[in-house]
Amino acid sequence: MTAEIIAIGTELLLGDILNTNAQYLSRQLADMGISVYFQSVVGDNEERLLETLHRAMKRTDIIITTGGLGPTTDDLSKETIAKALGLSLVEHEASMKRLISFFKSRHISMAKSNLKQAMIPEGATVLENNNGTAPGFMVKTDQNIIIVLPGPPNEMIPMYQESVKPILEDLSDGIIFSRTLKCCGIGESTVAEKIQHIIDRQTNPTIAPYAKSGEVHLRITAKSQDEAEAIKLIDTMEAEVRGIVGDYIYTTDQRTLEETVVDELREKGYTLSVAESCTGGLLSGRIINCSGVSDVYLEGFITYSNEAKMKHLGVKKEILDTYSAVSEETARAMVEGLVKHSGTSTGIAITGIAGPTGGTKEKPVGLVYISVYCGGKTIVKKYHFNGNRHKVRERAVVQGLIMLWNELNS
Amino acid sequence: MTAEIIAIGTELLLGDILNTNAQYLSRQLADMGISVYFQSVVGDNEERLLETLHRAMKRTDIIITTGGLGPTTDDLSKETIAKALGLSLVEHEASMKRLISFFKSRHISMAKSNLKQAMIPEGATVLENNNGTAPGFMVKTDQNIIIVLPGPPNEMIPMYQESVKPILEDLSDGIIFSRTLKCCGIGESTVAEKIQHIIDRQTNPTIAPYAKSGEVHLRITAKSQDEAEAIKLIDTMEAEVRGIVGDYIYTTDQRTLEETVVDELREKGYTLSVAESCTGGLLSGRIINCSGVSDVYLEGFITYSNEAKMKHLGVKKEILDTYSAVSEETARAMVEGLVKHSGTSTGIAITGIAGPTGGTKEKPVGLVYISVYCGGKTIVKKYHFNGNRHKVRERAVVQGLIMLWNELNS
Repeated sequence: MTAEIIAIGTELLLGDILNTNAQYLSRQLADMGISVYFQSVVGDNEERLLETLHRAMKRTDIIITTGGLGPTTDDLSKETIAKALGLSLVEHEASMKRLISFFKSRHISMAKSNLKQAMIPEGATVLENNNGTAPGFMVKTDQNIIIVLPGPPNEMIPMYQESVKPILEDLSDGIIFSRTLKCCGIGESTVAEKIQHIIDRQTNPTIAPYAKSGEVHLRITAKSQDEAEAIKLIDTMEAEVRGIVGDYIYTTDQRTLEETVVDELREKGYTLSVAESCTGGLLSGRIINCSGVSDVYLEGFITYSNEAKMKHLGVKKEILDTYSAVSEETARAMVEGLVKHSGTSTGIAITGIAGPTGGTKEKPVGLVYISVYCGGKTIVKKYHFNGNRHKVRERAVVQGLIMLWNELNS
Repeated sequence: MTAEIIAIGTELLLGDILNTNAQYLSRQLADMGISVYFQSVVGDNEERLLETLHRAMKRTDIIITTGGLGPTTDDLSKETIAKALGLSLVEHEASMKRLISFFKSRHISMAKSNLKQAMIPEGATVLENNNGTAPGFMVKTDQNIIIVLPGPPNEMIPMYQESVKPILEDLSDGIIFSRTLKCCGIGESTVAEKIQHIIDRQTNPTIAPYAKSGEVHLRITAKSQDEAEAIKLIDTMEAEVRGIVGDYIYTTDQRTLEETVVDELREKGYTLSVAESCTGGLLSGRIINCSGVSDVYLEGFITYSNEAKMKHLGVKKEILDTYSAVSEETARAMVEGLVKHSGTSTGIAITGIAGPTGGTKEKPVGLVYISVYCGGKTIVKKYHFNGNRHKVRERAVVQGLIMLWNELNS
């Protein structure tokens, strides 16, 4: 079975946004054994979109479009796709109700233009949008399956997962099973080098490493006629991989690194507090992305200034004066003052120079100290992170989580 | 003049890598006034690449390809492009010398397969690669200009800047200038409705709204023979748009919303502290993404638990007991306790139910209270945000910034 992904939107052709949807969908389809031969990007232009759709309908089984479902007049995906299929648009009652209640619940008046978002080609299967106002839809013809999804990834991805993936799985011959071994604390090229002999001889299952902001995910994918056989194939390869890089694998389930850390803290009956300087709340923000974290995470301090470090964490002025705010000594004093003050059994503190200004020859931009208090002892590590301010801060957040994970598992 | 970007590589169709080249080139071309009507992605497959090239040659003036210039047999861009143009490949002496010295300088022996990288279609202009082994090239025919670039962005971008951009600038008629009016506190469809009459009659300059997580950006683009004329065209349209939605425009420069807020705080000599419950540090994290913010941002508290709200912000137990943690009264007490405790002239506090659990009929998931203290008074607003936990928190962060921006400008 073949598929083609058509991203619709002039903003893509202007280079205003990156077409991450095409990558996401391509990977999803590849995992299911559906071959993507083409990706196309076309603007919000009827003639050129029609041309693109007609060609895709001739050469491909499954067509997935993203974008152009917004309420404004320049969004014309739905109208044009209906035209290409020779279908007229009809009002979809349930979608209209959803739209009205969506605006009502947010206490905002609905613009008239939003009404067009409840119009759907006749006979299409509506794909509900639980994260926005534009429903998607699917049309089956004798030759093609046309799946129409919204452009914003936070709407497109859940819609794909909830509504599209199950449909495509039913169409696929054989089943595809995959498992991701999530690694932290090791680089992509190092992992790849260590398991190169497995990568080289892969057939079924296959294995592929993916770098994910500070983590490496190893995805094992097996194709089989039944689930038990696929799981057996994956188990065998996982065991071999674990024999080589097992120490770095933090989970093989859906959980994120922060969820794994929070679950381990909870299991051990530990509590956590966090003090952040250069990351300024991002580490806490990520930990609090775990729902129901309140039994584990007690409190956090954003101590960007020296005054705040002294006031809330009890860091002594002499330490700041002698070693500076970005030093092993300050990081240690921050986490020890933090857990004392907060009464938690574990703590993380981060202090560093995220840049672009503030660096010196001795303390360059990217220098970050992270301290972790766990099991009655303090660990401080020094890092040199590459990249811009945003990147340095993001890496420090991941590394803080990794350090705590390591301590919980040591 | 029109252009089409063709990215060549099976790894793109498998979703292994993101097509950042297409975005980069699209933006570059848009800035020069060259209209990109299509982006395509095709695998390392002769038949499908030929099909894609022939179509592009029919419908577009300038074709830029990226990728498939590597030394291995699956890299067949050059061979296929030469075939599409009816040209044979010949050895390019200077490129051969460069290749040999490239490997020599790195003390690695050159694989035989690398030799094919010095083969170029006859008559093509070679584009030197100062960052890798694959030269690019350009072929002009009566109908088209075909520009062939390597795939790795660290080779493609310098080659584009050094060799391609000057050529295209010479070809372009007129210059393109654009300006973005960044709006906050108003939805995309509402903006579009208000300025629909301007959108409807747009020719030069054009105007287009883009939704950007809680913000709407209006981009005005003018084409002209000289800069002064373009700026005049944009100024006129900006004035008209400002007459309608001026209250929502926070900047027209490169700054983000948080940078604008921090700059305004600094100008007024104000300081800021932040207290976060459900957003758990993300608002502070975003504000501290502004480099050099330490003179404005003094400290932040992540008071996810009731205990932390009482301990650090002085919220009274009776308020929490009577009105609950997610209430107007608690939000007010949080921000007032915060600024008192921190000694800052402004403050933002956020408390809400981000979900997926914790919601009730009276206090559903998505209910968020945001309080802002500024200019000696406290404002509390109640919001109902849609979406998952991540989305609710992200929206609350943006709204907190917007509320403070509004107060600073009221």
